[in-house]
Amino acid sequence: MDKILRVNMTDMTTKVEEVPAEWAGHGGRGLTSTIVAAEVPPTCHPLGPNNKLVFAPGLLSGTPAANSGRLSAGAKSPLTGTIKESNAGGTAAQLFARLGIKAMIIEGLPKEDKWYSLHIDKDGVTINEETELIGKNNFAVIEALEARLGKKTGILTIGTAGEFRMAAANISVKDPDSKIRSHGRGGLGAVMGSKKIKFISINGEGATPVKIADPDKFKVAARTFAKALLDHPVSGQALPTYGTNVLVNILNEAGGLPTKNFRYGQFEAHDKISGETMHDTIVARGGRPKHGCHAGCIIQCSQVYNDKDGNYLTSGFEYETIWGMGADCCVEELDDIAKADSLMDDIGIDSIEGVVMFGVAMEAGIIPFGDGKGILRLLTEEIAKGTPLGRILGGGAGSVGNAYGLTRVPVVKNQGIPAYDPRTVKGIGITYATTTMGADHTAGYTIATNILNVGGYVDPLKKDGQVELSRNLQIATAAVDSTGMCIFVAFPALDIPECLPALIDMINARFGLSLTGDDVVNLGKYILKTEHQFNIAAGFNNAHDRLPEFFALDPVPPHNLVWDFTDEEIDEFWNF
Amino acid sequence: MDKILRVNMTDMTTKVEEVPAEWAGHGGRGLTSTIVAAEVPPTCHPLGPNNKLVFAPGLLSGTPAANSGRLSAGAKSPLTGTIKESNAGGTAAQLFARLGIKAMIIEGLPKEDKWYSLHIDKDGVTINEETELIGKNNFAVIEALEARLGKKTGILTIGTAGEFRMAAANISVKDPDSKIRSHGRGGLGAVMGSKKIKFISINGEGATPVKIADPDKFKVAARTFAKALLDHPVSGQALPTYGTNVLVNILNEAGGLPTKNFRYGQFEAHDKISGETMHDTIVARGGRPKHGCHAGCIIQCSQVYNDKDGNYLTSGFEYETIWGMGADCCVEELDDIAKADSLMDDIGIDSIEGVVMFGVAMEAGIIPFGDGKGILRLLTEEIAKGTPLGRILGGGAGSVGNAYGLTRVPVVKNQGIPAYDPRTVKGIGITYATTTMGADHTAGYTIATNILNVGGYVDPLKKDGQVELSRNLQIATAAVDSTGMCIFVAFPALDIPECLPALIDMINARFGLSLTGDDVVNLGKYILKTEHQFNIAAGFNNAHDRLPEFFALDPVPPHNLVWDFTDEEIDEFWNF
Repeated sequence: MDKILRVNMTDMTTKVEEVPAEWAGHGGRGLTSTIVAAEVPPTCHPLGPNNKLVFAPGLLSGTPAANSGRLSAGAKSPLTGTIKESNAGGTAAQLFARLGIKAMIIEGLPKEDKWYSLHIDKDGVTINEETELIGKNNFAVIEALEARLGKKTGILTIGTAGEFRMAAANISVKDPDSKIRSHGRGGLGAVMGSKKIKFISINGEGATPVKIADPDKFKVAARTFAKALLDHPVSGQALPTYGTNVLVNILNEAGGLPTKNFRYGQFEAHDKISGETMHDTIVARGGRPKHGCHAGCIIQCSQVYNDKDGNYLTSGFEYETIWGMGADCCVEELDDIAKADSLMDDIGIDSIEGVVMFGVAMEAGIIPFGDGKGILRLLTEEIAKGTPLGRILGGGAGSVGNAYGLTRVPVVKNQGIPAYDPRTVKGIGITYATTTMGADHTAGYTIATNILNVGGYVDPLKKDGQVELSRNLQIATAAVDSTGMCIFVAFPALDIPECLPALIDMINARFGLSLTGDDVVNLGKYILKTEHQFNIAAGFNNAHDRLPEFFALDPVPPHNLVWDFTDEEIDEFWNF
Repeated sequence: MDKILRVNMTDMTTKVEEVPAEWAGHGGRGLTSTIVAAEVPPTCHPLGPNNKLVFAPGLLSGTPAANSGRLSAGAKSPLTGTIKESNAGGTAAQLFARLGIKAMIIEGLPKEDKWYSLHIDKDGVTINEETELIGKNNFAVIEALEARLGKKTGILTIGTAGEFRMAAANISVKDPDSKIRSHGRGGLGAVMGSKKIKFISINGEGATPVKIADPDKFKVAARTFAKALLDHPVSGQALPTYGTNVLVNILNEAGGLPTKNFRYGQFEAHDKISGETMHDTIVARGGRPKHGCHAGCIIQCSQVYNDKDGNYLTSGFEYETIWGMGADCCVEELDDIAKADSLMDDIGIDSIEGVVMFGVAMEAGIIPFGDGKGILRLLTEEIAKGTPLGRILGGGAGSVGNAYGLTRVPVVKNQGIPAYDPRTVKGIGITYATTTMGADHTAGYTIATNILNVGGYVDPLKKDGQVELSRNLQIATAAVDSTGMCIFVAFPALDIPECLPALIDMINARFGLSLTGDDVVNLGKYILKTEHQFNIAAGFNNAHDRLPEFFALDPVPPHNLVWDFTDEEIDEFWNF
């Protein structure tokens, strides 16, 4: 029987509630956004008693469906002030689903200045005081909890950045290899820190297989779906071989690889940090080029990256992190980037916000461009220790820009702009400007169609068709984010005719429904509008759906284009 | 012949322009806000090339009218993101007016990384490179420029805070005693710093007396007006005797003196920092209890405050500064507060933003409550040196709150809330919430009617009548801010029937007009609506016209009231 867990940190009570009828059809992002919109006052302080932190597995999480193990986290964001959804792999989503937990809602703030943990099992959730692990970073927390509670325990945890309530703090999820996946964007770790919850442990004993209404239908659809993932050249070949970092050379070639804090669109040393170089390095050092972030992943875009002595260094080593510390900060040493990636996971900083922030920190002159060792030092000596400089950096790219009075600060709604220059890849600029989340490439990944020729082709250098492209992708993504599926299922879904129907068939078979493609589109629209309405009530309007001024003023080589959408053209986005 | 000076820092050109017909009837705030609204794109970056810094004397500046020597400065604020007007005494307004300068508009950003100064004389304005005074603070700049250009030179300058483009940086104006008056609020010093202008010097040689259309009528009105100022108990007695600091004991008695970062409404040690104690201290040490901030001031609410050895320590020592470092930071030593006041003038930090910020810094645990010497150290060792901690502090109260993840952060639109608790003095809460400027008591000083029984009486503890009171005062203030008059002329204008007509008569006599009281009200409405429209286009809406959440959650002793206006009640403000 599905249930809602509710934890009140003010009066230290927990409840197991029935799932309200209006939430029953939702999962993942659709459910966390629905709950936040229903229960969080939009103008509340994100770190105050009225914000709530919500976790929900997807509609298909816990089933045998390939790539369905993403957990959604939602709250009002301390980084952006908007509603925020961030999803991650790891083992927690499937544990939630198999324990029958549709969502967990954490509300209130403790009255006492103490730290706590939550422990979930088949009977519900308990609140415990925690002292031992306070001040520890994520890898130490995971190691200690596995010793304390057993290797199979699911873990959600914050590092010191979350304890410090830094706006770039993330929430880490233990993955099947006891490594870390992150609810990265939007500072949700600070929300967890404000509620004084160091970690959430999940005991899966007694978890039952997810009930599937029509098992035969499910099996057929799941097979078709998995085949589509494996057949598509991006999800079946490029991602497993090179990881997401396959994009360095592709974006460099397109002139859309933001370099030196978004001054240029190409990075001379791109070969040193490319997916191809990374793959060869991993193989030469006895690492693993393929690795899944959750059980059931068949794309395997993660990897195990070893140092030059063959010892484990990092995994989940993504294009956006490598781009940012590489091209955007002009660091040419892939090993330094890998170390920083691991440190950001450990301290609990969103690695996208982190690298965009370091580019701005270099703009401010805190360390010179190219100084990879300087970044490692800032992470361990400043951010992890919560020094004043660490506080500025831990607040993200906008925080550094404000503190140093800079104008070249690539943020939208105060969230750092990721790895694709919006002047050269104009569709993604529309996504950055309009998404309910602050700058976020995953919200409507036009790179697929602008650069990778997936789902057709829209010329990235021209304005034509970009608003419609971004809109369609944002609607589809909101729906996919509700299923617990990894966003990369979008590649086959856009190109292989059987893929999307199979996904819908799995949902129908799971719940005994008969949803159509239109229903899925309507779900996506409903989610976007629910989030947008929250943001409007929180004080956002069209004037916030804008890119920073410098994109309109400074042409970016090699195409020497500026961001040239008019306000009216951008605002067309919300006409649906 | 009145003229507009236009300085373009991008192409390093200056122009003398005719006054456009639509600006001719405006002065002071009415003119700076009109120009900013007309020429600055509302969504531009405040420190970028599209922001403009505008100075304008008032309609009556340069005339013999009492208290008419305030200079208005306007721009888009880097602190609040709103339009911003801040006016100050000193000698510059009268020099502008007598040189026939209706306004000066500074636009663009230099291409080279050099510092500059502007020099104004009867022929116009020139741009000069400056090296000697860069890195110097305001008192040193004034001393050096008097040596370089003569004692009579008018000076506008920024300290190191402005050079660092800190969001709390102000613009200093030399006063008749070579001390400092400040365009304090909203970070206009950072705008001047972004344009790389260290100072503006004004040579008054060749300045002609301001032409008055009807000198006899003017003389009669000016006499009536001055008599009203002297006759009113607040402007004629309380302010000259105790300065604005007369308010410490009054607000403490009312339970509206925010104490320990707005935890309480009364401060046990209020006697140690009160206006009465200050007056006795000044007299005992051979200082001056009365002092004018500009020639022609007959209220003389400033003072010369000496240290215990009888040496000059500070002047323009205001209630809000003393409240903030005293009650709000729990510092009991008036001499420490005076030293901090002088240091904030020297470094170029708004002393209101500064003291509210220090209260939040104490909340963050950076230094303990009550540590006055700690504040002095933070000013000289951190802010003045632009260290990372200094950058956080120099960004104002909101900056500290963000860096340390706090919720008890008394700001509206990111500007620090001054010296009157809105839970206990509810009218001023409406002003904080609704003014176009971010939290600003001067925008609609309901303390007059809520606490001082000026202009009638509206019970400060109740909601009734507060919105109307704040609206009427904000409209009137916008008009008064256009005349170049000190805001304290409002006390007699509210109580003495002849005062306001005499003020209008002076304007009519100066320009040969026949304005009525209704015209003045309409002017005030026009200014507010112009500013409000700018803010809306910049992305503000009703959701920003709110006080921080903690005011609604935490009752403040001794009355144990919370902020209890509904959104709808607040939003009634703009119904005019």
